[in-house]
Order: sequence, then structure tokens, then C-alpha cells
Amino acid sequence: MPTLVLLRHGQSQWNLENRFTGWWDVDLTPAGEAEARAAGRLLAEKGFDFDRCFTSFQRRAIRTLHLALEEMNRLWLPETKDWRLNERHYGGLTGLNKQEMIDKVGEAQVKIWRRSFDIPPPELADDSPYALVGDRRYDGIAIPSTESLKDTIARVLPYYEAEIAPALRTGERLLIAAHGNSLRALEKHLSNIDDDEIVGLEIPTGQPIVYELSDDLAVRDRYYLSES
Amino acid sequence: MPTLVLLRHGQSQWNLENRFTGWWDVDLTPAGEAEARAAGRLLAEKGFDFDRCFTSFQRRAIRTLHLALEEMNRLWLPETKDWRLNERHYGGLTGLNKQEMIDKVGEAQVKIWRRSFDIPPPELADDSPYALVGDRRYDGIAIPSTESLKDTIARVLPYYEAEIAPALRTGERLLIAAHGNSLRALEKHLSNIDDDEIVGLEIPTGQPIVYELSDDLAVRDRYYLSES
Repeated sequence: MPTLVLLRHGQSQWNLENRFTGWWDVDLTPAGEAEARAAGRLLAEKGFDFDRCFTSFQRRAIRTLHLALEEMNRLWLPETKDWRLNERHYGGLTGLNKQEMIDKVGEAQVKIWRRSFDIPPPELADDSPYALVGDRRYDGIAIPSTESLKDTIARVLPYYEAEIAPALRTGERLLIAAHGNSLRALEKHLSNIDDDEIVGLEIPTGQPIVYELSDDLAVRDRYYLSES
Repeated sequence: MPTLVLLRHGQSQWNLENRFTGWWDVDLTPAGEAEARAAGRLLAEKGFDFDRCFTSFQRRAIRTLHLALEEMNRLWLPETKDWRLNERHYGGLTGLNKQEMIDKVGEAQVKIWRRSFDIPPPELADDSPYALVGDRRYDGIAIPSTESLKDTIARVLPYYEAEIAPALRTGERLLIAAHGNSLRALEKHLSNIDDDEIVGLEIPTGQPIVYELSDDLAVRDRYYLSES
């Protein structure tokens, strides 16, 4: 039976500092590392196993995957990393403390940028310290300067259809360690969630979300593993 | 210019205890983790970069790769794991303290098993606590019950020819994190070392060995990065 487990990375340094992160490559905190290990132990205890893993190009997700696999004794599983599983690019909000933003432009505007489906934040300036120009990992990729959730979905879903769905259709059990918004994109698609509802779906860090699927990838069940 | 960097994993728990390890999946010690990180920092300091990484199915090598890549800010690089880069299988010697073995069968016999090119140690018994029967990572693979260095080379080189050499021929820069004997196999091939000389080639843990190659993969230079 095809199974897909989604795992949002553990707490990062900028989660802790309440700053917009997006594509900036922030590391896990010690608490985030512990969350990742706990997720791996929970998966092992509940008898989960995988055939293949996917993650983004960002270290907080990659390390979450590695720490979980280490606890499962599954470091040897094949893993595929792809930028299309990256977090939503927060544009000019990158690096800003959320409270500072609220103080500056007002809570209503921040909420629009964070919570609207198709309105992106202002673009990240090329001379921002958070610009990724020249980062070899994105060679050959048109790095976005900002993304709405809709934009994020528009690059996650083609990757899902091209690489992930075909593996599921062969019956593989997959683990995806990624980010709040790239996982929202997958949840929206799998669970058929409306545009105005998906923005309110909170995905907790370090909590495996299990999708049990039929052979044609219809959702048979979806649950948080910690509550099963 | 094709470049191949070989990295033997850092100190493992059984390196420390002086026990034959082979395919048993022993973890790094804290000192071994530090060696792996130091290797990554050295590679970054010396301006090395890679296009692709290879490692074995064994956690001491996989974790060495990950720790080195973390220090290089290159966790996002594609990595391929394959059992054919595993350590030599030490058969019935697996788990034994080297001193105990010497006391039991004599230093001469131990040296024959460890140092001869084509004489394998006795087979590992199916009911040994170190037997890997039922380990899913080796599903579909004829797990050896023992290996000589010659046997190890006989499974490393076809993998090199099939997966590693073609990548080098396209000019890629590759990092391979593996084991004393799987790396000996590669060094024997690349540097054209005789059967009776290769058994004496010691490969230090955590020390990047650089092969600069011509387009047809002839060796232009081979050196320890720490001595460059």
C-alpha cells in the first residue's frame, strides 16, 4: 500500500527568533535536532519503514531527515534532494523579525503577506544580505525573488507529479522531510483543500503526518502519527 | 578537470576497541565525528568543491560524509549510497578483538587473514550475532559470508566502472566517503598498485586523499590534502 509520510523540519534558529526564513539556509536549534530524532524514534516504534526519502536543498530539512533516519537505522535509504521542495521564498520579508514587521507596516499587512493565497511579499533586493545570487546550489535555477503560497504550489506540484507520485504508484513507502509551505502544497493537493483554507493549515514541526493511499493515490487515511 | 577525493570514515567504536568490523554497522566515536568535520573544514579551506558524492550502506561512512558536507555547506549535493562501497567483510573475525584473535590463533595466522591478498578469513556462521540475514538493506544482494581483499576489489571495481568513472569522464568532481578496503580497491586500480603491495597500503581515517585526473582518468597527481 503506498504510504507517504510528511515531516516538517524541527525548530530552526529563526523559528526560535521569530524571523521570516524562506530560502535562507538556517540550521536547526538543539531543540529542533531533538524533535527530528524523536520523529525518527516514533516512526520506528510505530513500525513504519520506507523505501525512499525526499528532501529540499535546505539544511534544516536535510538534517531533520538524516537525524530521523539515524534513529530508524535507515541512513542507507536512497534520498533525493530538490530545490522544488524548498520553503516558500518570503522575498523582502526574509530575515525580518515578525514583531518588527508588525510594528513597521501593521499587523494587517503582515497577515496579508503571510496568509493570503496569491499575494506575494515585496521582492527581495539583489543587494540584500539574504540574496542567493551566486549560490552554486541554485545554478541553472531561476531563483524566485518572492513567492506567494500559490507560487510555491506551482513549483512543488510538478515535482510531486514527476518524481513522487510515480514512486507511490509502484507501491513505495516515502518519507518527505520539508517545510511548512512545501508540505502545505502537498497537503492541499492530496486532501483537496480550498485556496482560502490551506493558508490556515498549520503544520507542526517534527510531527510525522501519515497519508495512507490507495493504488491510484486516493487518500484512505491521514493522521498525525503522535496521535495514533 | 576530473577530481576524485577519497575519505576514509573517522574513528568508529570498534576501531577504538580494536575489533574486526567489516559489515557490522558500528557508529563513529565522538573523535571520529570530529575527524569527519575536520576533513570537511580542510576541504573547504583548500577551496575544494564537489558535484556529487558516493558512500557505502554503512553508517560510519554515511555519517562521515554528512558531517564533512555540513562543514562545507554542501549537504544539498546529490549523494549515492551503495553496498559495493562497503568495507571488506571479515567473515568469522567480525566482532573479535584483534588481540584476542592473536592470543587464540597466533599473530602469523591473523596477519595472513588481514594482510593476504586472496585468502579470506573463515566464514561467518549464519547463527552469529553479527550475521546480517534479514537486514532489509541487503535484500536482493548475495551477502558475502567472508571476503579476501581480492573479493572486495571484485565488487568495488565494477561499481567504479559503472557509476563513478562515467561521472568523472564528464568532468565531475566527486567525493567518496568509504572504508579502508573499499578505498584500497580504488587506489589499487587508479595507482596501478601490485597485489602484494596493496595489502600494506594504510589509509588514514578522516584524511582526504586527492586524485587529480586527466580526461581519460589517468592519474596526474595523488596526495594527502593535509600535506598539501
